[in-house]
Amino acid sequence: MNDAGFRSKVAAFACEVYWGDCDPAGIIFYPTYFRWMDAACWAFLASVGYDARRMRAEHLAMPLVSADCQFLFPAQQGDRCVVRSSIARFGGKSFVVTHEVQRDDGMALAKGSETRVWGKFESGPGTRMRGQAIPEELKALFRA
Amino acid sequence: MNDAGFRSKVAAFACEVYWGDCDPAGIIFYPTYFRWMDAACWAFLASVGYDARRMRAEHLAMPLVSADCQFLFPAQQGDRCVVRSSIARFGGKSFVVTHEVQRDDGMALAKGSETRVWGKFESGPGTRMRGQAIPEELKALFRA
Amino acid sequence: MNDAGFRSKVAAFACEVYWGDCDPAGIIFYPTYFRWMDAACWAFLASVGYDARRMRAEHLAMPLVSADCQFLFPAQQGDRCVVRSSIARFGGKSFVVTHEVQRDDGMALAKGSETRVWGKFESGPGTRMRGQAIPEELKALFRA
Amino acid sequence: MNDAGFRSKVAAFACEVYWGDCDPAGIIFYPTYFRWMDAACWAFLASVGYDARRMRAEHLAMPLVSADCQFLFPAQQGDRCVVRSSIARFGGKSFVVTHEVQRDDGMALAKGSETRVWGKFESGPGTRMRGQAIPEELKALFRA
Repeated sequence: MNDAGFRSKVAAFACEVYWGDCDPAGIIFYPTYFRWMDAACWAFLASVGYDARRMRAEHLAMPLVSADCQFLFPAQQGDRCVVRSSIARFGGKSFVVTHEVQRDDGMALAKGSETRVWGKFESGPGTRMRGQAIPEELKALFRA
Repeated sequence: MNDAGFRSKVAAFACEVYWGDCDPAGIIFYPTYFRWMDAACWAFLASVGYDARRMRAEHLAMPLVSADCQFLFPAQQGDRCVVRSSIARFGGKSFVVTHEVQRDDGMALAKGSETRVWGKFESGPGTRMRGQAIPEELKALFRA
Repeated sequence: MNDAGFRSKVAAFACEVYWGDCDPAGIIFYPTYFRWMDAACWAFLASVGYDARRMRAEHLAMPLVSADCQFLFPAQQGDRCVVRSSIARFGGKSFVVTHEVQRDDGMALAKGSETRVWGKFESGPGTRMRGQAIPEELKALFRA
Repeated sequence: MNDAGFRSKVAAFACEVYWGDCDPAGIIFYPTYFRWMDAACWAFLASVGYDARRMRAEHLAMPLVSADCQFLFPAQQGDRCVVRSSIARFGGKSFVVTHEVQRDDGMALAKGSETRVWGKFESGPGTRMRGQAIPEELKALFRA
């Protein structure tokens, strides 16, 4: 159980460091971690029944309030990784997801978090978006 | 006048090679050129009166049919460049844009082309998109 | 057997269209395909014994001469795909890889090619790189 | 003068939101801000005499310890922006850069920070990198 009292499922998102994800220092270019965290968050949603198709159909979105990441060990091309994501906290209209990135040998590479709003487009992608109270039914889907 | 008989304006799009655009070989990661070509094409449209705001308001889009690029000289971080874009050909619903990328000292870095459809979303971004006959008025805007 | 008489192995590289790979039209931003083709090419090399670690250790690189892609059908977030890569042709110091991108239901999304040089850094990444005659032993590894 | 007592210069880095920087919600895909912050940090270094060429020649690097960003207002394609960067704090071998992203009409879009190590490659990019005590002469270059 985390500080806020929510006992979250943990989702696993597999990824790999590609040549083009690395910089001239020969290690991962750090925005790559944020791309992974975003994709991992969408995969987490999909794992509980809210896949991309449903999110589109129901005009749902989850824009960011903030994001942060600590870089623990430099990843290199060819490193196979997993991002473990869990809900740290549900607020009224927002939620916090924490992400831990591990190399497949267990080495911790990075850990970060995203604070997002649960939002709905008025009439489809590109139109005005408003934050929604997160339904209890949705929260329940993430409970371990 | 190019092969197809269209004498096009030439637009200039300024860009720079950033650290994160380069790979472990210390040179530009090649998809960066395609990102530049895409941005240069939008800037070209904007320069003749079709900026992002108008494209959105009129539900216009220009999806790709194909793209290609030749890489002539390896660019490095800090290289300031310009992409010179021109219309190679207008078809019925499609058009071809050629792009030449030069470093600011005149060194040719890359040259490529994009074939695009002139399209319209049925009711805004994300909805079904259909190719449109390119209006003569639009073509005229690109004439040198 | 392809036109040039080289009967190539075919490698399969799995990938997925993420939220951040898509543009405001709700479909894949096209440079994503080139990122995939690059990663697929590295994976192809790895599959025959030249993984990232070995490429680094032996100071090997494979810079691009050109790349092209045709976009056949618009991919959307959540589409699971496979890139099938094969050697179209070996030249003296260069080679051509073709890539076919399919959605997991078999829909053809894109097909493209990369022409690359087989190169070696004089003394590690970032140093001067020279094209190398492609060893027959290397070519043999790709033979079906 | 900031909390840590360092009165920093403020560098301005111009950028623009491109089509490919945006996601299906029609707004900026958030890792773009981190790409900008990284580029802005390199530009800040360049502005005080440490450009990419010099960084390469002297085997210098500035790997990340952590990064964070708050997203204040959604940016759209075509928004012209400036990232204002300043040194928040110099530690022994690390430093903190803060970045404020504004749209050209003054709208605050995002603000974030990067904590970096001042590092040196043992023998060029790709080789082992070690943190270095930040020279007082370097710190002085950033003083307002």
